[in-house]
Amino acid sequence: MEHIGFISFSKPVHQIFMFRAHFLIMKFIIDMDGVLYRGNEKIKGAEKFIEFLQENNIPFLLATNNSTKTRKMFSEKLSQMGIHVNEEQIITSSYVTAETLKNIKGRAIVIGGAGIYDELKRISWEIVDMEEWKRATHVIVGMDLELTYDKLKYGCLAINNGAEFIATNDDKNFPAEEGLIPGAGSIVAALETATGKKARVMGKPNQPYINIIKSILGTEDLWVIGDRVETDMVMADQLRARKILVLSGVAKSGEANIVVNNVAEIPKLLRELLS
Amino acid sequence: MEHIGFISFSKPVHQIFMFRAHFLIMKFIIDMDGVLYRGNEKIKGAEKFIEFLQENNIPFLLATNNSTKTRKMFSEKLSQMGIHVNEEQIITSSYVTAETLKNIKGRAIVIGGAGIYDELKRISWEIVDMEEWKRATHVIVGMDLELTYDKLKYGCLAINNGAEFIATNDDKNFPAEEGLIPGAGSIVAALETATGKKARVMGKPNQPYINIIKSILGTEDLWVIGDRVETDMVMADQLRARKILVLSGVAKSGEANIVVNNVAEIPKLLRELLS
Repeated sequence: MEHIGFISFSKPVHQIFMFRAHFLIMKFIIDMDGVLYRGNEKIKGAEKFIEFLQENNIPFLLATNNSTKTRKMFSEKLSQMGIHVNEEQIITSSYVTAETLKNIKGRAIVIGGAGIYDELKRISWEIVDMEEWKRATHVIVGMDLELTYDKLKYGCLAINNGAEFIATNDDKNFPAEEGLIPGAGSIVAALETATGKKARVMGKPNQPYINIIKSILGTEDLWVIGDRVETDMVMADQLRARKILVLSGVAKSGEANIVVNNVAEIPKLLRELLS
Repeated sequence: MEHIGFISFSKPVHQIFMFRAHFLIMKFIIDMDGVLYRGNEKIKGAEKFIEFLQENNIPFLLATNNSTKTRKMFSEKLSQMGIHVNEEQIITSSYVTAETLKNIKGRAIVIGGAGIYDELKRISWEIVDMEEWKRATHVIVGMDLELTYDKLKYGCLAINNGAEFIATNDDKNFPAEEGLIPGAGSIVAALETATGKKARVMGKPNQPYINIIKSILGTEDLWVIGDRVETDMVMADQLRARKILVLSGVAKSGEANIVVNNVAEIPKLLRELLS
């Protein structure tokens, strides 16, 4: 029983033992920032955790709300940290946005980073110049380090002109070296205030993101590993997934089936549950 | 009774005639954008209305929520339209902000235009460079045509670091040539979302603005002339002032003591009430 220390007390211990039988058919949905790395710094042991999943043929998806990078850029970033995952096993809120919109043809104004541009190109959407806001059918908003007043202005004009208002995600802020800094949700709030209209949000914990996860992993035996209660843990509830909260990112406590300091603790824990 | 056409029916007619006795001690608080001009275009007859007030020695203040320009810049703008008003008779939300804060010494990060910089210099406040956000005691936010992500970031960091979060005004949007575009309130909303903190708002219809008006014009015989229900007419209620709604700006209808198409109609109306 010495592994009890790893386990939160939000569920009775007998439920933990029920997991044993399911070990080989566990499927993991794993957040990245705060879970595998913090900014550009790998979390110690993250690569061993991923190798453990790969060696045991346990299905998993890396699932981020970050819309600024492409899936390939994430694969490369991880690779530089010694974590080797194909881009096909990585989903971003930009990817979910494109997958959700791919059956229609649109012309979008984009307020956001490379991830959004790349995904819209993949589904053959036209990116409209800001000044041509009257031609836009959609305004797609994510985190944008290059935000300017003019982007807000043209986004506002296009939305008021009838373009659909889409947010890749609405995370209010995120941790940077200097402290918490504004996230996509902050930019979305500026446009919601200016237009009086609510964005349709694609990212965790919303339905479009959940639909994409289910279409890849199915609906059974899902486990969500994340560091944020309001996105990862809420999404786990929506997915009827079990929850592993890691304390290596934003949350310093929270309710979950299992609470660990970091993902490096998970292989040992699962082996003990199996043994 | 032919002037009844100018008067809304929200008040009985006998109340209108009560105004006669007060004519010579009326004091006017007059909004500018949508009332005296629209953007850079004078509203026809606005100069005659101001001349009427000046010739009859009727006290008035021009009162705007626009924080981007200095009082001098507004005086010059009006002058170019043939409307001659001293800057002492013009108040802006930047002026109200400075008058409200002048008894303390602060170091401010400014997200906004020349009006804020000018007023803070007048009260001998230090303007802090964005990168020195840790030194800021206040973050002062208004309309900013030069808004960037970095400004939001440093504002967010300073507010989270304990700097007081001040908004010159929180108008959600305002009319431009192309349509409604984001106002100070849109930028304020971005920071409120990122920080989870509410701004202290100085502009109409809030208490700091009302205090400054009362300190200049007193509390009696006030009449507010404006084009916006949610700022001008709400402020009139707070001031216990009578209301003249002009339909030359944002509002196309609304409750007021008097509703006119534009300020050019007011001198004739007042003369008829006096005759």
